[in-house]
Amino acid sequence: MNRVTLNDTHAIAIGAGILGTGGGGSTYLNRLRLDNEIRKQGRNVDVVQADDVPDDALVCAVGGMGAPTVSNEKLQAGDEIATAVRALEAHLRRQIYAIVIGEIGGGNALGPMVAALQLGLPVVDGDGMGRAFPELDMDTFMICGVSPAPFVLADSHGNVSAFTRIRSAKQAEEFARRLTIEMGGSAALVMPVMTGAELKATIIRDTVGLAKRIGETVLDCRARSVEPAETVAALCNGRVLFSGKIVDVERRTVAGFARGKLIISAFDNFDQQLRIDFQNENLIARRNGRALCTVPDLITLVSLDDGEAIGTESLRYGLRVAVLALPAPKELKTPEALAVVGPRAFGYDLEFLPLAGDLL
Amino acid sequence: MNRVTLNDTHAIAIGAGILGTGGGGSTYLNRLRLDNEIRKQGRNVDVVQADDVPDDALVCAVGGMGAPTVSNEKLQAGDEIATAVRALEAHLRRQIYAIVIGEIGGGNALGPMVAALQLGLPVVDGDGMGRAFPELDMDTFMICGVSPAPFVLADSHGNVSAFTRIRSAKQAEEFARRLTIEMGGSAALVMPVMTGAELKATIIRDTVGLAKRIGETVLDCRARSVEPAETVAALCNGRVLFSGKIVDVERRTVAGFARGKLIISAFDNFDQQLRIDFQNENLIARRNGRALCTVPDLITLVSLDDGEAIGTESLRYGLRVAVLALPAPKELKTPEALAVVGPRAFGYDLEFLPLAGDLL
Repeated sequence: MNRVTLNDTHAIAIGAGILGTGGGGSTYLNRLRLDNEIRKQGRNVDVVQADDVPDDALVCAVGGMGAPTVSNEKLQAGDEIATAVRALEAHLRRQIYAIVIGEIGGGNALGPMVAALQLGLPVVDGDGMGRAFPELDMDTFMICGVSPAPFVLADSHGNVSAFTRIRSAKQAEEFARRLTIEMGGSAALVMPVMTGAELKATIIRDTVGLAKRIGETVLDCRARSVEPAETVAALCNGRVLFSGKIVDVERRTVAGFARGKLIISAFDNFDQQLRIDFQNENLIARRNGRALCTVPDLITLVSLDDGEAIGTESLRYGLRVAVLALPAPKELKTPEALAVVGPRAFGYDLEFLPLAGDLL
Repeated sequence: MNRVTLNDTHAIAIGAGILGTGGGGSTYLNRLRLDNEIRKQGRNVDVVQADDVPDDALVCAVGGMGAPTVSNEKLQAGDEIATAVRALEAHLRRQIYAIVIGEIGGGNALGPMVAALQLGLPVVDGDGMGRAFPELDMDTFMICGVSPAPFVLADSHGNVSAFTRIRSAKQAEEFARRLTIEMGGSAALVMPVMTGAELKATIIRDTVGLAKRIGETVLDCRARSVEPAETVAALCNGRVLFSGKIVDVERRTVAGFARGKLIISAFDNFDQQLRIDFQNENLIARRNGRALCTVPDLITLVSLDDGEAIGTESLRYGLRVAVLALPAPKELKTPEALAVVGPRAFGYDLEFLPLAGDLL
């Protein structure tokens, strides 16, 4: 694809929601913002392929940082990402060539497009996660050794902080998380800066296109009055893990994350239950204590009615859901990646149990 | 004075300790570091007067941030301040003309001299507090409207963060405090950056000289086997508020500060007690519930034996102390300053009860 128009934003929002595995922020709010910005500017979002970015050009990944429970209620000023990118350019005395989507999951697929329009820059078709993850060091850029410094955080009051030297990506996560909390629980993040050559070596390609295809599939099922879950699962080489009703949700916003677990009961047999643990994103799905799907594979709850993803901030008793289990992109299943985004990296005493196939 | 030599550091350390009102960090550790740096570089610290700094030159105030309870135990790498100043210069693409001491109280009088030697720059004779204060917005620079941005924090691992836009000095304090905690409880701070003209309009002059004179007075009393408290009080236009033994200390390191209170009992009558509340620095001295001395006037505990100041991190049962009450410099007693550093700014329902006279 080479542009995002008003005709695409609905599908991309739905697809990004499903790739968000519960996190990545509200697609609803960010789609409103994106539609508004496209109308205001009177032009579409230009999309470039990673392989068309010159090796020596500079690009930067961007997104919103914070718990989805917060970012859904604390509205953005609307120009935080653009402010942060401009601060980065001022610090580097270099122009940014294109905006990279840090995570394709959730509202974080769309916020970078708003910023790209404001900055007059294209976005790259791809991202660093192929889904959403709770921590900023959990992207293919960092995993493949792109430097975490410099990075920039900006808040809705215009406060800007540039971390110019940083010892590790993990350290960057800790500092940025702490400052995001102090900034009210959500902030715009620009990280990492990289060359076109680094981008090509690390990005997960075609995920904007994938989000759009998933969304179009959902919209098509809706138009045909078909439940979309099975069709979406098939498109993504995955399966429907479970269907039922949410019967329990434990959720706390702690240390800047939305953490908790939920339990879904089958419609026909209340004792048939699926339990999902989450930290912003859904991480582990278990049945009778046995893990069925594990991070980095994607676990997404979609509404049985309309196929829309349900974010961790929107979980509540009584929702009728299907649980999608989709295989992660291959870039997340290398030993180096699993050390950062596998179950053990989240504190679970579990091996990664890969679903067959790859997302893309 | 126009330089600090190995012959001066002992006196300045003692004097800065007394001006520290319990805070500002260890003078012992920073004097060792300063002596070591003077020997290593084979030259003295150049001292310039504020009025000799060109109006259009850039200077920056520097110091250590964090609870003294932490900085006494978590040793510095030794070049944090210099690293932070260099990061500021790189950000601004401007050379810094001279180093300004952010607070003359405690080890923060000496750390900037170490950095000045490392950077090959002079220090200005004066500071922004005339004492020590717990929060970074509590200096005459900020009180008089110097911009808090940009400011830089650096830690002992080489991590550097430049806050390039910030809404208020109070906001800067909150962000910097939070990040300092994440950096392990102590960090180097460069803040604010100002022109020579701004420096001249805001600095409290001659406080390096005052620290030296206080220290020399203590050393002279020691040589004559005289208790130094009364002599030091007289030199500073203050008085000895109380003498006795510390009988109770409550102290917690909370939210990045050492907070608490202590009680001193008179030697001849245990029921005669003085209570002091502190937040890094001593803030309020009360007898029978009545305030006798209030911030910003200086309340300093000195050992009855040798006249050395006792930091809040070193308070313990049984220490025999004199409590000095010294009037604040006049720059801290304007209505604008009292709004930031008076008792109400620290949450006490008390008016400032000024001692007669001024410190300088």
